Amino acid sequence: MKKTVELLKKNDNILILAHQHPDGDTLGSSFALCRALRSLGKKAQVRCSSVVNRRYDYLREGLEEQVFEPELVVAVDVADKVLLGADIEREYGNRVDLCIDHHSTNKRFAAHSFVNGESASCAEIAAEVIEQLGVEIDKKMADCIYTGISTDTGCFRYTNTTALTHRHAADMMEKGANAEYINRIMFETRTAEYITLERLVLQSITMHFDNRCALMLITQDMFTKSGAGEDDCDAICAISRQIEGVLVGATLRERADGTYKASIRTHAPVDASKICARLGGGGHRRAAGCQFDGSLEQATQQLLACIEEELKLI
Amino acid sequence: MKKTVELLKKNDNILILAHQHPDGDTLGSSFALCRALRSLGKKAQVRCSSVVNRRYDYLREGLEEQVFEPELVVAVDVADKVLLGADIEREYGNRVDLCIDHHSTNKRFAAHSFVNGESASCAEIAAEVIEQLGVEIDKKMADCIYTGISTDTGCFRYTNTTALTHRHAADMMEKGANAEYINRIMFETRTAEYITLERLVLQSITMHFDNRCALMLITQDMFTKSGAGEDDCDAICAISRQIEGVLVGATLRERADGTYKASIRTHAPVDASKICARLGGGGHRRAAGCQFDGSLEQATQQLLACIEEELKLI
Repeated sequence: MKKTVELLKKNDNILILAHQHPDGDTLGSSFALCRALRSLGKKAQVRCSSVVNRRYDYLREGLEEQVFEPELVVAVDVADKVLLGADIEREYGNRVDLCIDHHSTNKRFAAHSFVNGESASCAEIAAEVIEQLGVEIDKKMADCIYTGISTDTGCFRYTNTTALTHRHAADMMEKGANAEYINRIMFETRTAEYITLERLVLQSITMHFDNRCALMLITQDMFTKSGAGEDDCDAICAISRQIEGVLVGATLRERADGTYKASIRTHAPVDASKICARLGGGGHRRAAGCQFDGSLEQATQQLLACIEEELKLI
Repeated sequence: MKKTVELLKKNDNILILAHQHPDGDTLGSSFALCRALRSLGKKAQVRCSSVVNRRYDYLREGLEEQVFEPELVVAVDVADKVLLGADIEREYGNRVDLCIDHHSTNKRFAAHSFVNGESASCAEIAAEVIEQLGVEIDKKMADCIYTGISTDTGCFRYTNTTALTHRHAADMMEKGANAEYINRIMFETRTAEYITLERLVLQSITMHFDNRCALMLITQDMFTKSGAGEDDCDAICAISRQIEGVLVGATLRERADGTYKASIRTHAPVDASKICARLGGGGHRRAAGCQFDGSLEQATQQLLACIEEELKLI
């Protein structure tokens, strides 16, 4: 922390890098830090290699573009330099001075890494850094930090949520974070396209192994019919695990080239990463993925066989 | 508070009444209080006029039935004695000694009422009462209190959530509440019947008034086909308002006698209770309801006409 604060204090032109396919935590943390640095009279700018969904617009509201030659490059919520995205990785991948992160798997690609794997969100670490910089967190910074906390914890629902997470959220609400607006945008809004896709996918559910496994299918045809995109799949994949009694929720998604990708979501004690490892994929204990080159029928058979094997072990 | 604690302290046989069609808050608050009173060596028992869903079983775990003649009758999270349910109202409606509640509309039907309309959940008030009784909140009480807080705030998502709500949740987690289990049971589990009903209802969505209104239909046929029940409708009605751009989400639900009931969910600035008041119903600003005697066609026409009138006013 001391070195982190020192680096941020002694430099005046600071480039902040968020990870590609950005979520509320990388963006919330980055914009909070950007706002704090600017409040100290420094130049600071956030860059991200992906197009940012417009629902995050409020995070950057009022921050005008600043052009400068960066003296310090800071990656925020970035576990590995490849996650910066190809263009930014090429330009800055080997010259990241500081990385602020909460992934315990952080690859230590930066000259200095400040990583707290216990923190539910990177935003909570950013809040502590900002306070150590001597900056009073204002309403807009609080909006950014709250966004990071609530999105990375599924609005305080995921297993990473701790008592400290709640205390940080309380602090941000007291500093003016508009939790009502943020939660509505992040959790209570579905596009008409998403709803159509969900309806089509729900029709595809089949149950297996005494209803302990639910299998769903997302086809290219469903994307076309609904107008929904890949972005919408995460929320849909989560449904498979929510069915009462289900320990393994699996989703097979058809890719543009006709091959299939599987997303596995599990409840304890089933380990999703073990199922996917049997198929050449990987991931976390409760969420993992793998790919298939063959037909839908082959992919289904292989996937169900591996799930059955894992279910036999519990 | 002082009188509340005094009443609870000086009586040894205490009957606690939850409201009918019980939710996590009335049950969580009631069982937390029951556990606290028993820990003081008193006899205490919770009663509810409805069958309690088995997902709430953990709240009462380990509490054996106690038979006694009540010296003190306490209603918890009950705004009006009719909400006790017919049987319990007949027996105790006019002899409730104490009511602990967080509804600002509380009818003051009890001899003594302890009401804090600012509190997001009744469970938070129950926690304060328990502490004032000099009882250390244990893991099982913390589970009960956390359940009340998280269910009455939609897991910290609803607009009633305050910084203090988060601080109470943090306290309960520190005292051992199993937030992971509770949130999974309350928010991440859907029955197969629910999922089938949702799929059928999503097919019925029609959009109106420049997509600012979404109308959904739940028929008796859908209940039959899915096996889902009335209990499942609340979560489904919420979907109508979640569609991007929608200000008024309306659901028409067919009743067993072939008439229809409307549930209206709105976003600011539209007042759901005003729409329903035009149709002889009522409710809150963001959630209200009304009934129709005529055909589906008539109900739809009347409902949409009133929604259009309200939308014109904004």
